[in-house]
Amino acid sequence: MKEVFDYIDSNKDRALEALKTLVRQPSVSAKGEGLRECAELVRRMLEDLGASPKLLEAGEGINPVVVGEIKSKSNPKRTILFYNHYDVQPPEPLELWESPPFEPTVKDGKLFGRGAADDKAELVGRLKLTEAFLETCKDVPCNFKFLFEGEEEIGSIHLKDYRKKYPNAFSADSVIWEFGGIDAKERPEVTLGVKGILYVELTAKNANRDAHSSLAAFVENPAWRLVWALNSLKKGEKILIPGWYDDVRPFSKNEIELIKKWPYPEREVKKELGIKQFIGGMKGLEVKKAYVGKPTCTICGLDSGYKGPGSKTVLPKEARAKIDFRLVPDQDPNDLEKKLRAHLRKKGFSDISITYSEGERAARTSPDAPIARAAMKAASIVYERKPVVLVSSAGTGPMYLFDSPCVAIGGGYSENRAHAPNENTRIDLFVKGMKWVAETVNTFTELQK
Amino acid sequence: MKEVFDYIDSNKDRALEALKTLVRQPSVSAKGEGLRECAELVRRMLEDLGASPKLLEAGEGINPVVVGEIKSKSNPKRTILFYNHYDVQPPEPLELWESPPFEPTVKDGKLFGRGAADDKAELVGRLKLTEAFLETCKDVPCNFKFLFEGEEEIGSIHLKDYRKKYPNAFSADSVIWEFGGIDAKERPEVTLGVKGILYVELTAKNANRDAHSSLAAFVENPAWRLVWALNSLKKGEKILIPGWYDDVRPFSKNEIELIKKWPYPEREVKKELGIKQFIGGMKGLEVKKAYVGKPTCTICGLDSGYKGPGSKTVLPKEARAKIDFRLVPDQDPNDLEKKLRAHLRKKGFSDISITYSEGERAARTSPDAPIARAAMKAASIVYERKPVVLVSSAGTGPMYLFDSPCVAIGGGYSENRAHAPNENTRIDLFVKGMKWVAETVNTFTELQK
Repeated sequence: MKEVFDYIDSNKDRALEALKTLVRQPSVSAKGEGLRECAELVRRMLEDLGASPKLLEAGEGINPVVVGEIKSKSNPKRTILFYNHYDVQPPEPLELWESPPFEPTVKDGKLFGRGAADDKAELVGRLKLTEAFLETCKDVPCNFKFLFEGEEEIGSIHLKDYRKKYPNAFSADSVIWEFGGIDAKERPEVTLGVKGILYVELTAKNANRDAHSSLAAFVENPAWRLVWALNSLKKGEKILIPGWYDDVRPFSKNEIELIKKWPYPEREVKKELGIKQFIGGMKGLEVKKAYVGKPTCTICGLDSGYKGPGSKTVLPKEARAKIDFRLVPDQDPNDLEKKLRAHLRKKGFSDISITYSEGERAARTSPDAPIARAAMKAASIVYERKPVVLVSSAGTGPMYLFDSPCVAIGGGYSENRAHAPNENTRIDLFVKGMKWVAETVNTFTELQK
Repeated sequence: MKEVFDYIDSNKDRALEALKTLVRQPSVSAKGEGLRECAELVRRMLEDLGASPKLLEAGEGINPVVVGEIKSKSNPKRTILFYNHYDVQPPEPLELWESPPFEPTVKDGKLFGRGAADDKAELVGRLKLTEAFLETCKDVPCNFKFLFEGEEEIGSIHLKDYRKKYPNAFSADSVIWEFGGIDAKERPEVTLGVKGILYVELTAKNANRDAHSSLAAFVENPAWRLVWALNSLKKGEKILIPGWYDDVRPFSKNEIELIKKWPYPEREVKKELGIKQFIGGMKGLEVKKAYVGKPTCTICGLDSGYKGPGSKTVLPKEARAKIDFRLVPDQDPNDLEKKLRAHLRKKGFSDISITYSEGERAARTSPDAPIARAAMKAASIVYERKPVVLVSSAGTGPMYLFDSPCVAIGGGYSENRAHAPNENTRIDLFVKGMKWVAETVNTFTELQK
């Protein structure tokens, strides 16, 4: 691997130029801005690599998925898939950027720009480490497949459809996920899974207009209906919907051991949020187990009636709540949505309408999977430190659409400001991330020989 | 009274001119616009009447209360007080007015303009009927006192202070309230009371910023805290705060009889709101009893986290609810606020902060009070129809600050669009309202001879 690492080092400026090219091209999926142009740029980069790219389509107005493949001459029976995305978050608020979001700017060893980290740095990294293999070994350690979507920042809303239409594009022995890197203490962190999600909106309606609150003596108030319906969903930390926890897979012994070892910066998180304690004074292992494996039910938004200053005596015509249920293996959002509906009906809340806006299953890879062991071993080699292992991120992604074991590793760090103004990539980590992923693929291949 | 009525009839154009003069002067208390100028106009009108007016003051930035008094030569031992207000609602939305709000315009027998009904028509009416007595009888039937405030449209927020500083200005044998008139079926309606109010805002806070909802596994969600706290306040139609109903005065036999007779346009209200039924299918007497005498707890507003389109996975830093409790005699908002605080504390919601923004007691006059009997009898004379009697409006006002019996009567009608664009007074009712009030005062004096 020395030649590969040397190639990565001596070509890092070219890699950075490629990243700048992508950052310069806005690709804001939330606004439908520049997606096709960016997909075309990515397609051309794959073409330059000899990866026979294609733009997959799933219907009008849906952003294309860019795929490519490079066959291994030495090891054609194993396939690694790289999942990344070429879309980015909106750059707003613009006034908080120190340099324009779509003019990539290098400062203090960092490249600034929208997408400079999430996820264009990782996407370019995958391409450039592939180039390193091809230029030095004239081969890749196993077959490489690339799947780059353009709707990750809006919840990968059509990736299910792509999976249905192009199942082959999703198949591989293992998958390298789109994010990863070092933690706040500069330890490489191997993440083995993501939580799932069920996102719904509950709406209670009554009159066709807001009424004077004096009528509350006999006109139903949808804000009360909503409050009572919400109250029926959760008591303390327990979700009250019958059967909600039926399919929760218990932690394996191995997972518990990893969770015990995984360092969670409780104090820093509390400080950052300005809070004195977590729910019920939770600490240590309990917090970490919750982070990794607790199904949650979160009110993300409440909206009804008068919200301005002072008092207004109004009886609102409707009330709405946005709710995010985080799921764990093996909970199924479709099944749970049915349980939610049945529960509200049974509790007498048939008047509350439910809009299902997002559903994804959780995914978790065994720490014993070859790709997981490879990522850990590679981290020790590249960073010369023992990695920390996170059994599952508390966040969500479409990992479940890939049936193979998957690890999330890369060149990120905790202050890359993904989704925020002044998003950036540390150039040293950008390079190290490429090496980590290259070494992981190499080790993965070695482990299975 | 024939001479008085004739005078009112033959001087109606002069009365209308006086009303136009007041309407031309904006006096928007919500914006602090034109209040002193309007108070001065009113003071001059009182002066022209010989009512020795004064502008009472309760502190800087507080709109003055204009008072005046005319002693009766024939009956100096009885005093009637007229409570009105010279401030108006903001005229917005301006584009919906068919004529400019502060340019009084006569069309189809109506005078249009902001304040043309609420409350400048009533205020001018009181002055002009006084003039009618003075010009025809060279006396008034009993002492007349006038109390015209300038903050009614912003909740009479300083009237308590005025009452404390100038108790004498509030004392009388009976009070004629600022509104009244005929119902949708053109029946004169005598209103004998108003509900009280306790308006609070509940706020739950936790972190110093919104967090990613993945942290919900152990970071407290103020939106849940608020929902649970609200849920503890009310179940179905029952307010659960201990002692809430302790001071509720039961209906007297007389009141029940009046409520039975009072016609409430259930069908029209449902149609107007676009609803099929009232809470629990309530009908008839039950609805009317609730309108008049049920203490309510209304969520007027809910606000937390993300309220835009689609889904955002956010753990809100705070959640707020605005709550309007309507009160009935003899509930005390100060006492109830304490009970609310104690209840939330006892239920474990000490983290919820309570902001008290408005408190007024209810007020109700006995149908046997001379002023009530006088208003009913006068209605029959002036309108040649038996009046309907409303034991209490479901709305609120500072009636409780006047310790004397009080009736709400006047020249209004159900389509006067008070608080809305194209506010107007029907000129025929403006005249009839003056006669009704004049006849009421006359009858009140007669009854007590």
